[in-house]
Amino acid sequence: MSIKTLHRGEGCAFLTNAHITEKIPAKPAQTIVFKNPPHISGRMSVVGAKEGKGPLGRYFHRVLSDDKMGEKTFENAEIKMLTTAIDGAVASAGLKAKDVDLIISGDLLNQVTTSNYVARQYHVPYLGVYSACSTMTEALNLASTFISAGHFNNILCSTASHFATAERTYRYPLEYGCQRPPYAQWTVTGAACTVLSAEGSGPRITMGTVGRVVDFGTTDLNNMGAAMAPAAMDSMVALFRETGAVPEDFDLIITGDLGKLGSDILRDLMMEQGYYLGQRYIDCGNMMYDVTQKCYQGGSGAACSATVFNSFVLDKMLDGTYNRVAYFATGALMNTQSCYQGETIPCISHAVVIER
Amino acid sequence: MSIKTLHRGEGCAFLTNAHITEKIPAKPAQTIVFKNPPHISGRMSVVGAKEGKGPLGRYFHRVLSDDKMGEKTFENAEIKMLTTAIDGAVASAGLKAKDVDLIISGDLLNQVTTSNYVARQYHVPYLGVYSACSTMTEALNLASTFISAGHFNNILCSTASHFATAERTYRYPLEYGCQRPPYAQWTVTGAACTVLSAEGSGPRITMGTVGRVVDFGTTDLNNMGAAMAPAAMDSMVALFRETGAVPEDFDLIITGDLGKLGSDILRDLMMEQGYYLGQRYIDCGNMMYDVTQKCYQGGSGAACSATVFNSFVLDKMLDGTYNRVAYFATGALMNTQSCYQGETIPCISHAVVIER
Repeated sequence: MSIKTLHRGEGCAFLTNAHITEKIPAKPAQTIVFKNPPHISGRMSVVGAKEGKGPLGRYFHRVLSDDKMGEKTFENAEIKMLTTAIDGAVASAGLKAKDVDLIISGDLLNQVTTSNYVARQYHVPYLGVYSACSTMTEALNLASTFISAGHFNNILCSTASHFATAERTYRYPLEYGCQRPPYAQWTVTGAACTVLSAEGSGPRITMGTVGRVVDFGTTDLNNMGAAMAPAAMDSMVALFRETGAVPEDFDLIITGDLGKLGSDILRDLMMEQGYYLGQRYIDCGNMMYDVTQKCYQGGSGAACSATVFNSFVLDKMLDGTYNRVAYFATGALMNTQSCYQGETIPCISHAVVIER
Repeated sequence: MSIKTLHRGEGCAFLTNAHITEKIPAKPAQTIVFKNPPHISGRMSVVGAKEGKGPLGRYFHRVLSDDKMGEKTFENAEIKMLTTAIDGAVASAGLKAKDVDLIISGDLLNQVTTSNYVARQYHVPYLGVYSACSTMTEALNLASTFISAGHFNNILCSTASHFATAERTYRYPLEYGCQRPPYAQWTVTGAACTVLSAEGSGPRITMGTVGRVVDFGTTDLNNMGAAMAPAAMDSMVALFRETGAVPEDFDLIITGDLGKLGSDILRDLMMEQGYYLGQRYIDCGNMMYDVTQKCYQGGSGAACSATVFNSFVLDKMLDGTYNRVAYFATGALMNTQSCYQGETIPCISHAVVIER
């Protein structure tokens, strides 16, 4: 059964988990169908002032007036922001910190220190992950696997990014005042946390696709969208091919932070594979800022898709606008040194399917 | 049943999985008992020339004569070393690269680039993790969870570290020629890979303990052993308490890279908790070099325990010397910037239990 054939309308009976399971070959390559899909029982998104002024501003749970949050360093502000998101998500799930069984978290800083220092404050098991801006979906995949297998009841998945710390880590300190090229994106200042629980009534994570590392040879640290689009394509085709789904089976398909240029590239790449994404496809980076905010191609960073997913997307699932959503966060896996040493940028996209 | 009572000999009937499961409370705090424990089906350890001259030299599968492996940069050498370990482990399991379902890997470099660039060479699903020198046991825990839950058949768990890249990342470039204090450790140049499979006849990973972040206030980037010992104690007490085990239930208890000083601290901390570790306890960092090699407290780095586990320890399990081993890798979760900004060093230790 070729991809093109499927695209022309065969997969429309994609309605129940049982149905999906039948279509998956005995040894799935990348996609896991969770036997006991976990519920999303709590969530919180925190963003900076600039993000709060963007088109999605009213959906975020908290908008900071001061991106330093009264701290001495931007790194400490990022820690405080992630702590705020975690505490809010735990409260929104009706839980106490002592009810949390596991924290899975990662971020963009060297040695994922934001997550490590946040986890230090909670006396619960912790798993650090690194998947750049695809962190949230890696964490959701792992948490769903644990809960579906009967281990742990309440797991927090969280991530954060901060414009000032990310620029220092990946490009130039802000003090240099570097000019940005027109294909650049803007790292979202924000943090988000999703609580997954074995019991509950919220939307469920029914499937997960673990991404592969894809590298089409991009070398420009400012052009993340072009680097990441092929990774999103690779995982999207894997999910569709392995489950027999087509884009029309989803009410919404979101990518992490390809930005305007990158999401246009993804549309073209998917069209070459025989899939027309159309109006049901949106990119979180593309939605984060409006054109007057001078962020060029849009938002990026681990918090970009994580904050949009935990606010706008889940709001629209809970109010019945969307019933089935595929969420592909996208990450670029280089560091500055690898690029200075002449390496190209390897990218990845992990995905989850959320159903009401 | 207090810990002290247990230490005085009650737990000696710790013989079967069924027995362990009974003792675990309904909601385990940190320890998972795998329903379908995966087999270790393949492995390989690669080390540098210095490590090859140490007491364990004859156990490693490959000892490099040139720590740069003919590459232009130490970073590229680290990538080549990890690739060598992965290819060797896959071959030793009787598999081909196409049989690998998932790679779980992490390392010490910023944004775990060694693992990312290695994963780029294999077209299989990949999950990046960060847990500093506790990476191997985090990966083994995740892989065991996946396989036990029926997802994926063959999973690679791998990690690497390199003295030259780690010094550049965490302390000073080698060219500075800094003097090292007597409580310093030496980052192991090495890489290791373990293949876990759903089917097979090798030793099995029967349990895993997910660590918590523990910080006793150490600030000295050179004194990793003292920083990490409390984290090892925390996870060790959790495993013992939650399973009703005592040290005597294991033929061997290993920690990652506490070094001489750190492992002495751990013995004291465990004694305070009522557990006497005795002769059955060894530290991989303490075993890696001999006193003439001037590595002070011993080895450290993600590859330290990973290479010892995949060579010496598994050799001794396969020849019947050890039947039940508890492996606690230990990691320090700071980065240089967090320490320059005045932060203390948070640490973690993830553990697995391996049984023949």
